Amino acid sequence: MKSVDLSSPNPLEKLLQLIKQNELWEGERILQRNEYLKMDGTKDSRLYYIISGSLRVFVFDPDTDEEHTIRFGYQNNIITDLSSFITDAPSDFNIQALRQTHLRLISKNSYMQLINSSKETQQLWQQLLGQLIYQQMEREVDILTSSPKVRYQRVLARSPQLFQEIPSKYIAAYLRMTPETLSRLKKG
Amino acid sequence: MKSVDLSSPNPLEKLLQLIKQNELWEGERILQRNEYLKMDGTKDSRLYYIISGSLRVFVFDPDTDEEHTIRFGYQNNIITDLSSFITDAPSDFNIQALRQTHLRLISKNSYMQLINSSKETQQLWQQLLGQLIYQQMEREVDILTSSPKVRYQRVLARSPQLFQEIPSKYIAAYLRMTPETLSRLKKG
Repeated sequence: MKSVDLSSPNPLEKLLQLIKQNELWEGERILQRNEYLKMDGTKDSRLYYIISGSLRVFVFDPDTDEEHTIRFGYQNNIITDLSSFITDAPSDFNIQALRQTHLRLISKNSYMQLINSSKETQQLWQQLLGQLIYQQMEREVDILTSSPKVRYQRVLARSPQLFQEIPSKYIAAYLRMTPETLSRLKKG
Repeated sequence: MKSVDLSSPNPLEKLLQLIKQNELWEGERILQRNEYLKMDGTKDSRLYYIISGSLRVFVFDPDTDEEHTIRFGYQNNIITDLSSFITDAPSDFNIQALRQTHLRLISKNSYMQLINSSKETQQLWQQLLGQLIYQQMEREVDILTSSPKVRYQRVLARSPQLFQEIPSKYIAAYLRMTPETLSRLKKG
């Protein structure tokens, strides 16, 4: 495995650089708007790099017929069914393209081989997992926060890119508010 | 560092075994019921092993004066302010004993030295971080699930020990339901 450039502060960028240098990408996919990358009840443990476009991860709530969006993916980021990735089992998560989306993919096996090839790559992965845990804790506090305004401000501060890349109706659902409330909060 | 017994399927148990074998515990603490281990606005990146007792991690919601419990810790488990641990910064999390609680502690530095001492320990840590991410995704789905019954059943299936170790009023708040609803669901 080629060595890693330690000058970049971002563990994901370094890992992407290593995947590219070692030619580990295993294929590409193009999804049309609304097309599913993965449906609930199936397993997909691959990691996807988003060259362009955006996607959402959601679960279906049979008691209310609601879809609960739990994560978004957009350009230059990674998206995966984290549950399948971690457990190697089918999950309840759906992943759907929100517009035409171009992806590059790597299998969990190839990815973990890269990670376990050196202490440096293991440390990068640990950093990335730590970032994920931190984001998930912040998300948990978001959901439990009563004030729509505070929820909006927390997510805007943490993920400004979200508001550029994702259609408003999905952001509103993610923030558990109506599109009208989100629109009002955005204006002032 | 002494080597790890790979026969145990539980990464946390293996890591605890290594901490013990290498005599890395740095102290003990006894908390009385309702005493705080850590208050919001402060930083504490240590890991605590719970010899006996139980604790909760919560945030305070200033808009409603509510406390949102986001995690419990009980006997033979680890509790930490994950946010301080990951970011090395103060966090909004409080950690409070729910009964008299006996803890053993290790600093983040000593712990990470152990983790980074070999590829095997790094892999154990990766497994543990993966488990945490999985639990947090399940928790996110719990919170978003509309039916109190389904919320109760999901948490009971995943964390049966919770219902033995934690007082009902805290479990009810964690499940976002009244103590009466929880009591009704428990009866069947």
